[in-house]
Amino acid sequence: MKIKLLFSLMLFAASIASFADNKPSADDDKGLIKICIMYPFAEGKKFDMAYYETKHMPMVAAFLGTNLVKYTIEKGVASGIPNQPLPYMAIGTFYVKSLSEYQKAIAPHRDTVRADFANYTDVMPVILVSEVVR
Amino acid sequence: MKIKLLFSLMLFAASIASFADNKPSADDDKGLIKICIMYPFAEGKKFDMAYYETKHMPMVAAFLGTNLVKYTIEKGVASGIPNQPLPYMAIGTFYVKSLSEYQKAIAPHRDTVRADFANYTDVMPVILVSEVVR
Repeated sequence: MKIKLLFSLMLFAASIASFADNKPSADDDKGLIKICIMYPFAEGKKFDMAYYETKHMPMVAAFLGTNLVKYTIEKGVASGIPNQPLPYMAIGTFYVKSLSEYQKAIAPHRDTVRADFANYTDVMPVILVSEVVR
Repeated sequence: MKIKLLFSLMLFAASIASFADNKPSADDDKGLIKICIMYPFAEGKKFDMAYYETKHMPMVAAFLGTNLVKYTIEKGVASGIPNQPLPYMAIGTFYVKSLSEYQKAIAPHRDTVRADFANYTDVMPVILVSEVVR
């Protein structure tokens, strides 16, 4: 009886550990495709981070379904090179499993996504598609 | 005795779960500072990803100590806007807790870091300091 109890509790412990282990870690990103939407800084241009974070990005994320692994948002602070202007005000990034699935999912919503730009910015973004090496 | 065993095994299970839980997740990045070193694409310019991944980035990472949470490397694939050139060949990113600690740690090694550029690229990077919003 004691052995049975021991065994079932060890199974329980292992199942908790493997559940907790399912969280995304840095290494899990390797091989994923990133779509980085980068908003260049320019004097007098605007970027409404609150709208971007609570409305725009969740809307686009919802179009991407299970192909979307996660998305991130960052706020530009400074250039890393002294006396250089800030390169980007903000960057939004979608981490997806498949670029073609991303393109297929976004295509029917392209006009909706673009029309929403005016609600938070007046600059045109630069968009980089890249692959996570590490 | 059975109760004692049960209790100690539950503690054991909890400790395994909390250990596994310490892995970085997407949400853990919030508030971190990112230093993104972005290498612009230009026709005929080079970027040696193998050297960058195995020599340059580990060297710089080693200067940063416990302030460094993680670093990532990505390889530019395409522009996300049709008929636009690839914006960046590669991006290396350090996620740190403190920008001032990063600057203090890098300062004495700046010449070493810059001298190593020629070993993998012939373009000057753009460097963005940003804050993880999400």
